[in-house]
Amino acid sequence: MTPLLDAIHSPADLKKLSRADLPLLAAEIRAEIIRVVSQTGGHLASSLGAVELIIALHYVLNAPEDKIVFDVGHQAYAHKLLTGRRNRFAALRQEGGLSGFPRRAESLYDAADVGHASTSVSTALGLACARDLAGLNHSVLAVLGDGALTGGMALEAMNHAGALKKRIIVVLNDNNMSISPNVGGLSEYLSLLVTRPAYVRLRNKIKGGLSQYLPARGQRIIATLRRIEDAVKSVFTSPSTLFESLGFKYLGPFDGHDIGLLIDGLTGAANLHRPVLMHVVTTKGKGHQPAEDDPCGFHGVGARRRAGEGEALETPAGSAPEPPGYSEVFGRLLTAEAEADPRVAAVTAAMSEGTGLADFFEKFPERSFDVGIAEQHAITLAAGLALGGYRPVAAIYSSFLQRAFDQLYHDVALPNLPVVLAVDRAGPVGEDGPSHHGSLDLSYLRLLPNFTIMAPADAAELEAMLKLGLSLPGPSALRYPRGPAPTQVAPLQTLITGRGVTLRPGEQLAILALGAPVAAALAAADRLAACGVSAAVINLRFIKPLDRELVLAWAAKTGRVLTVEENSLTGGLFGAVSETLAGSGHLVRGLGMTDEPPPPASQKAQRVRLGLDEEGILAAALTLMEGR
Amino acid sequence: MTPLLDAIHSPADLKKLSRADLPLLAAEIRAEIIRVVSQTGGHLASSLGAVELIIALHYVLNAPEDKIVFDVGHQAYAHKLLTGRRNRFAALRQEGGLSGFPRRAESLYDAADVGHASTSVSTALGLACARDLAGLNHSVLAVLGDGALTGGMALEAMNHAGALKKRIIVVLNDNNMSISPNVGGLSEYLSLLVTRPAYVRLRNKIKGGLSQYLPARGQRIIATLRRIEDAVKSVFTSPSTLFESLGFKYLGPFDGHDIGLLIDGLTGAANLHRPVLMHVVTTKGKGHQPAEDDPCGFHGVGARRRAGEGEALETPAGSAPEPPGYSEVFGRLLTAEAEADPRVAAVTAAMSEGTGLADFFEKFPERSFDVGIAEQHAITLAAGLALGGYRPVAAIYSSFLQRAFDQLYHDVALPNLPVVLAVDRAGPVGEDGPSHHGSLDLSYLRLLPNFTIMAPADAAELEAMLKLGLSLPGPSALRYPRGPAPTQVAPLQTLITGRGVTLRPGEQLAILALGAPVAAALAAADRLAACGVSAAVINLRFIKPLDRELVLAWAAKTGRVLTVEENSLTGGLFGAVSETLAGSGHLVRGLGMTDEPPPPASQKAQRVRLGLDEEGILAAALTLMEGR
Repeated sequence: MTPLLDAIHSPADLKKLSRADLPLLAAEIRAEIIRVVSQTGGHLASSLGAVELIIALHYVLNAPEDKIVFDVGHQAYAHKLLTGRRNRFAALRQEGGLSGFPRRAESLYDAADVGHASTSVSTALGLACARDLAGLNHSVLAVLGDGALTGGMALEAMNHAGALKKRIIVVLNDNNMSISPNVGGLSEYLSLLVTRPAYVRLRNKIKGGLSQYLPARGQRIIATLRRIEDAVKSVFTSPSTLFESLGFKYLGPFDGHDIGLLIDGLTGAANLHRPVLMHVVTTKGKGHQPAEDDPCGFHGVGARRRAGEGEALETPAGSAPEPPGYSEVFGRLLTAEAEADPRVAAVTAAMSEGTGLADFFEKFPERSFDVGIAEQHAITLAAGLALGGYRPVAAIYSSFLQRAFDQLYHDVALPNLPVVLAVDRAGPVGEDGPSHHGSLDLSYLRLLPNFTIMAPADAAELEAMLKLGLSLPGPSALRYPRGPAPTQVAPLQTLITGRGVTLRPGEQLAILALGAPVAAALAAADRLAACGVSAAVINLRFIKPLDRELVLAWAAKTGRVLTVEENSLTGGLFGAVSETLAGSGHLVRGLGMTDEPPPPASQKAQRVRLGLDEEGILAAALTLMEGR
Repeated sequence: MTPLLDAIHSPADLKKLSRADLPLLAAEIRAEIIRVVSQTGGHLASSLGAVELIIALHYVLNAPEDKIVFDVGHQAYAHKLLTGRRNRFAALRQEGGLSGFPRRAESLYDAADVGHASTSVSTALGLACARDLAGLNHSVLAVLGDGALTGGMALEAMNHAGALKKRIIVVLNDNNMSISPNVGGLSEYLSLLVTRPAYVRLRNKIKGGLSQYLPARGQRIIATLRRIEDAVKSVFTSPSTLFESLGFKYLGPFDGHDIGLLIDGLTGAANLHRPVLMHVVTTKGKGHQPAEDDPCGFHGVGARRRAGEGEALETPAGSAPEPPGYSEVFGRLLTAEAEADPRVAAVTAAMSEGTGLADFFEKFPERSFDVGIAEQHAITLAAGLALGGYRPVAAIYSSFLQRAFDQLYHDVALPNLPVVLAVDRAGPVGEDGPSHHGSLDLSYLRLLPNFTIMAPADAAELEAMLKLGLSLPGPSALRYPRGPAPTQVAPLQTLITGRGVTLRPGEQLAILALGAPVAAALAAADRLAACGVSAAVINLRFIKPLDRELVLAWAAKTGRVLTVEENSLTGGLFGAVSETLAGSGHLVRGLGMTDEPPPPASQKAQRVRLGLDEEGILAAALTLMEGR
């Protein structure tokens, strides 16, 4: 039922279509995206919003010679469908299938590997500089959302591009909503642009259209219009000067679902030999009513939520309902803390939904700070709140918190301020793959002076750790994975800073676990007992300060230590335990993540691959028993 | 000879002076700064440029209730002199003396601990939010330079502040030059503002002055002026809309050396209940001709360069001249590489002088990229250049490179791109103290997949490592300290990726060193031999990949291992060696930096304090010999 799309194996095939056919192609692409994402999960709303834009890009440009750099890349499904990946599209985000993001290893048409926000202008500018150095002449274009524009590095790059006066096109895909509804002066500014009066539309039609077909006469008309426009600008305070003051030529706003207009605009932009910002207004979830109505909910659609219905499927009959996720539990707990303590505030970077803070934000709007996609500012804003006597909790995904490493060091750790980090999505994250794993936070947080760093093994510990963090005079972090939080994996013992707890004694082997793997470690110890191996299970709870005495005691008692963490084996728990046991002569092995981050697959499959499930721990323990 | 300054023990004393006295006070402060910095070294030019501004700040505001947040903080010497630290000022940046930066532990008037750029607006916004939550009414003000404004997090924070509409003053201290001459569209934009015609000065005088003293009549005049201004704006394309589109009220530009004007402007700004950007134009090095003429050279003035002369003092008679510094050697080598290979490009973040790249930039302007204070963009720009077939080398100070941790991971390491990092100022840096030490780079770089990470022990190795890095198909880093590079500490052996070299065999102890400490390790081994202890010295050269075979072999042979690194003992060389030797039963001890970063002192004194000199290594080795 997608005859036009079926005939497209590369952008060359797309160019054979007439303009009149393109809206139908857009409808086919939309249907295919909805069909597949209903099965696989994925970023539905963003990809639906960018269908016409991506068609226009490939209609006008000549990729792969021309370089199209997507920001984040979650909006690029139509790009995948138009660049020879139609046949594999059904395996989107599946093990062995297509990545949910552009990957150079997947296609020549993917100009850069992406996943995080706000990088595209820098990459595109680098490509443009390389092009000019090499004396080449292709176009370089970055596609970024209005949310990504508020990320500092995008603004750094725009500033630099404007100064260099390089030929580069930045397409601002403005859906007035990044992941959560967008925040910031820029956002209001963009709205102002969009609501400018009708003359803008007229001008764009003439500029984008006439100048192509009536060059001489068109130029004269444009010159006249420009004079009129200048006069009008003086009334409307000239909103385009934001971008123009950064050195960009501003074109727009364009209706991002009018392919013809986009083609004309892009053709014009591609002929300008200077930095151009092309402002395109799109509707997130366009063409799919449930997603248009609830673009936040449809940002990342889990496979279990059917895209056609906008709600979770029933839990399959016979299986137990899953406990609520860590994010949800955290959000509920923090709301309770805020009710009890007026100093508690919440900070997030465009992830109030994803981090479970939606209720908090609704109940305590004045203590809620969503800074947009701006992790650096989020952390130092939290530092400022702490300096002002408040107790900020910054909830950020592990891999995005990497953006704020220096702010954590310089603005929180060195001044020893009571900021609590709620590090969500720690460990393997599943289908989003390498760019989104939270594989490094234990390692990089451990480098920060004054920090207390903990990982809950279950919902009960999460509560105790959040309370502890809020009570400390200095900074702290709690890190937990994506997915359900077991209510309680072992009877809760009092939480004491820097002290682990022994959950199960043993004679031959000590399993030192931290966070989510504690449950699997207990289960593995049961299995080991059945094999006649007596394994102790220690829940370390803290990686900083590490419970050195407990580690040394169990190492001495058993002579064999197995560390288990959902973090890199470099510099994390295995690193900390190795440093502690250096020279002790006890066998130490570690289970964790490596320099080969697991490719997209289910989170469960990734844990199995890493040996972080019950079977993996069992196998590693048995291997360790054979050692020495 | 400084009678006015002598009488000031706190801002309250300052307020007793008449306005007419203030220029004389400024002259006294300037004289005192020049006198002391001539002895101690320090950030002369920036502090001289901000004297009038800081006087005006303390004349108008009521610190410490009102919060003044300096960005970077190197411009705050006058602030120190006016807030009760006159007596200790002679010990600026000396061991046990005043920090060169604001420190809360030093004074109630220091609202935040700083050192890195672009953080002040975030901190100030956090303080303003806390103030409003607490129902208080003080002013919160950030002072940042035009260079710091181009840092992404400052723009993130301005965007957020504009949206929140909080009462906050951002003083933009525009000297048209951050550390190197400034770059970016913003810079051109600010110049445009400054060169606006005389009506602006008139308007400011009337706005800043009249409205205070003639409220009713003043308001009418202002209203009339505003109408005229709006008309004029339409001709001058309304440059202030950049800040106004971010939600800030723009005031300025003000002559930053006219104290009266600044006082009027600040008084007006403090009465506005919204975000205000006050644009102040200053001359870096103001009042000190050599510094005005060469503000780059006078940015950081070493103690050996007398501030009054603008050039290095003679080397003291009898002492050998020091070899050139690592930065200089690196710059020369990279220039030679670029002559041989047209793909070699250089990227820096406002540090072309500091990283030794001035000659490169002059010789190869088209392959030189100074992005301003924007480390995130610098790294991803380099990634884009690499994607375009070039061989970018990004030269950035270790502690500032922390800003780009996520970009290193996401844009360089995961896509495995051939970007070379020249990590300068690694290890203890001396007088600048904690915020500037390069104490973490080995630890955080080691977390990045695909990276080759090396540290040269001397100039000869630096050359070999730079050549190797440029020849690798993936990313690499070389890290080296501030200060002179010994020409050759041992005969150069062929450099092979991931292989260390044994510089001296030994039987009882193996000293595993990396980078700068190799020379001290060799000297300590001589001393140990004299004590009858046979110590091997291994130059590991690479921390990633680590030469596991060599480490295991020497540990097995000697049973005792001492690691020596100018990096944190957490997750760095000691961490890597501990992970490698986990369970081996050999004694392992490490010398390196800890969670207590050394306070300001000479680099030499800091190395002694950390035990990273010959004596420290000797002592640690002897202690280790007593173990087991």
